[in-house]
Amino acid sequence: MTVSSRGDAEALDRADPLAPFVDRFARPDADLVYLDGNSLGRLPHATRTRLRDAVDHEWGDDLVRAWSRWIELPRTVGDRLGELLGARDGEVLVCDSTTVNLYKLAAAALAAQPDRPDVLVPEHEFPTDRYVLEGLVAQAPERSVRHGPPDTVDERTALVVASAVDYRTAELADVAALTARAHDAGALILWDLSHAAGSVPVDLRAANVDLAVGCTYKHLNAGPGAPAFLYVRDDLQAALRQPIWGWFGQTEQFTMGPRYEPAPGIDRFLTGTPNVLGLLAVDEGVAVVAEAGVAAIAEKGRALTSLLIDLAQQWLAPLGFTVASPLDPTRRGAHVALAHPEARAISLALVGEADTVGDFRPPDLLRLGPAPLSSRFVDVWDGIERVRDLVERGAHAAYVDAPSRIV
Amino acid sequence: MTVSSRGDAEALDRADPLAPFVDRFARPDADLVYLDGNSLGRLPHATRTRLRDAVDHEWGDDLVRAWSRWIELPRTVGDRLGELLGARDGEVLVCDSTTVNLYKLAAAALAAQPDRPDVLVPEHEFPTDRYVLEGLVAQAPERSVRHGPPDTVDERTALVVASAVDYRTAELADVAALTARAHDAGALILWDLSHAAGSVPVDLRAANVDLAVGCTYKHLNAGPGAPAFLYVRDDLQAALRQPIWGWFGQTEQFTMGPRYEPAPGIDRFLTGTPNVLGLLAVDEGVAVVAEAGVAAIAEKGRALTSLLIDLAQQWLAPLGFTVASPLDPTRRGAHVALAHPEARAISLALVGEADTVGDFRPPDLLRLGPAPLSSRFVDVWDGIERVRDLVERGAHAAYVDAPSRIV
Repeated sequence: MTVSSRGDAEALDRADPLAPFVDRFARPDADLVYLDGNSLGRLPHATRTRLRDAVDHEWGDDLVRAWSRWIELPRTVGDRLGELLGARDGEVLVCDSTTVNLYKLAAAALAAQPDRPDVLVPEHEFPTDRYVLEGLVAQAPERSVRHGPPDTVDERTALVVASAVDYRTAELADVAALTARAHDAGALILWDLSHAAGSVPVDLRAANVDLAVGCTYKHLNAGPGAPAFLYVRDDLQAALRQPIWGWFGQTEQFTMGPRYEPAPGIDRFLTGTPNVLGLLAVDEGVAVVAEAGVAAIAEKGRALTSLLIDLAQQWLAPLGFTVASPLDPTRRGAHVALAHPEARAISLALVGEADTVGDFRPPDLLRLGPAPLSSRFVDVWDGIERVRDLVERGAHAAYVDAPSRIV
Repeated sequence: MTVSSRGDAEALDRADPLAPFVDRFARPDADLVYLDGNSLGRLPHATRTRLRDAVDHEWGDDLVRAWSRWIELPRTVGDRLGELLGARDGEVLVCDSTTVNLYKLAAAALAAQPDRPDVLVPEHEFPTDRYVLEGLVAQAPERSVRHGPPDTVDERTALVVASAVDYRTAELADVAALTARAHDAGALILWDLSHAAGSVPVDLRAANVDLAVGCTYKHLNAGPGAPAFLYVRDDLQAALRQPIWGWFGQTEQFTMGPRYEPAPGIDRFLTGTPNVLGLLAVDEGVAVVAEAGVAAIAEKGRALTSLLIDLAQQWLAPLGFTVASPLDPTRRGAHVALAHPEARAISLALVGEADTVGDFRPPDLLRLGPAPLSSRFVDVWDGIERVRDLVERGAHAAYVDAPSRIV
């Protein structure tokens, strides 16, 4: 339908089968328009309860005895998250940060392919991914990072690293085709699923993906600094050894033997003591996504971002904005990038003057992510209206020289 | 005084200047005797409140805007923790796990000393420390791990790794003397402070320590899987580069530039997104330790462990126990190891039959840690009495074939 009034957006919310899920999340400030769910997802009410219970009763009451349950969490929560990603049990762990997980898996992949010198990564891949690879090749003089799209993989490539959803534009990669292309060239491929997990369908097994990592604080709503995840296809696990040899990756951890022997299976990719509270938050975040279903979430994401783009083209194009995300909804994830020369100042002014949160990504992108599970169509209407009004009245001019902040 | 009755132990509690701190911690089960504070510290009431507030109001209300504060936490909480350790501002970070931090710092130390092939670590050092070093030298054919005491450092040694408090026996290392010895040999030294931080005095600057790591969930009471810490002496920071090049270690993180340039100062030892809730729990745990004062905590630790050893010698020696910890209280930290051929079964039976928690460390140690800040003298009395009664009646026999559990 064409949305030409706020009432039309309200009608979309009434017709939205996922509308009840909006109320599963804390929404304490009715005036706030939050379009940064792609950076930090909202707090699920269930998570608040789960964390209180864990602090009071698991830590407070059970104390160290609770470790007999906690120690399973990286794997059990990983299996639940893995179901959302098309992984099999025993292929996913929740542990460490995305950065550390990428380091572990990329190092393992390189070590397994000593005769192939290159790592291939897009020039504009998310910074931590590029930096981690740069750091790995700095350890090995025969290695180098080559910047280029994944389909330029060749016989010199040991590993391809790429994102399933571009962190700036939300452009979707063709995970299956690019994985097949990497395999045809004899390379391994590692997908960063940070912006994909919980927002768009991912089927790691169907695509025969080798390795993946991702964070849980975006569309999995697990909270600030919750542990990340990693995936290693089961038939690869025995041949791969990651470089951080910690006690949680050891066979028979509590015999504390003299030599490190990596655990069989996925556990060998663990390192140190896991973040228990964060794991429980991941468990709850995954549960609400699983209940709604990723296909339904992705469909709502396409509808929300389509509305956002329609309104941006009507209201914001005359103000100097251009849509930097794919216009075809089947080619994008759950956020939209709008390019504007003053995007940095606009993003600051939206927070400071208009109770509206998106974020800025260099050099010129205002990034707006109406998280499908916790956002309404009227949030998109209100948000774009606020952007329009703010830029029309020039309120961002006062922020041109303001220091950057995280949003 | 000689303690010959429970009433004598109660008198010690009445005279204890730190007794009021016991009530700062959750103690929901009055019958539980908890002697495993050296593994997982109790829940401070202040932490429960802080975590609720952070979940509800920082994550729930402020959402991504809170990152402008959260992003400082690894350094600000690190500085507060550093004060307990004799570090200067800008020398400590709270981040990642002990395992990952040890990997980062040990790798940096080795890379800075390419002409010295060996890493020296005690044969019975805590397992993850040994394993991490084994993994690092596996990456470099010219390197090797040599097992031996820190004072056997020589001109081939690049790095010495050792614990300030032995995880089994609580024996204290002479940090200052061994650091000086390492420096005389031209080596760097890295101290694992996991069992020391918050329980015994540590003065990193006075001892001119190069590097240190440690966990926060023992005597810093920060909860299961809270982030660990690392220390790098400020004059070493510019020369050291750690191998995990993540976006949080990058200069000007949010410009997201094309190349990794490590931040000046301690920030270069960061990797990925920090565990925010865990950091807040560390902040609260550090605050209560700072308020009590490490010197007073250590003094109470010596008194508690002396009582424990006295009672063990009276009651448990006839049952086959021997004290494996130093008898001189100035040579031990805040826990005690008692050797017994059936220590494993006894530790399981204590949990299962006597509501008493210690733990087992191979091959034959029952480890009992009455955390000074949250333990009473009567807890020690009751605990050793329960060990005696349990072993006298042979209740552990039923646990000889029971599977091991974490406690």
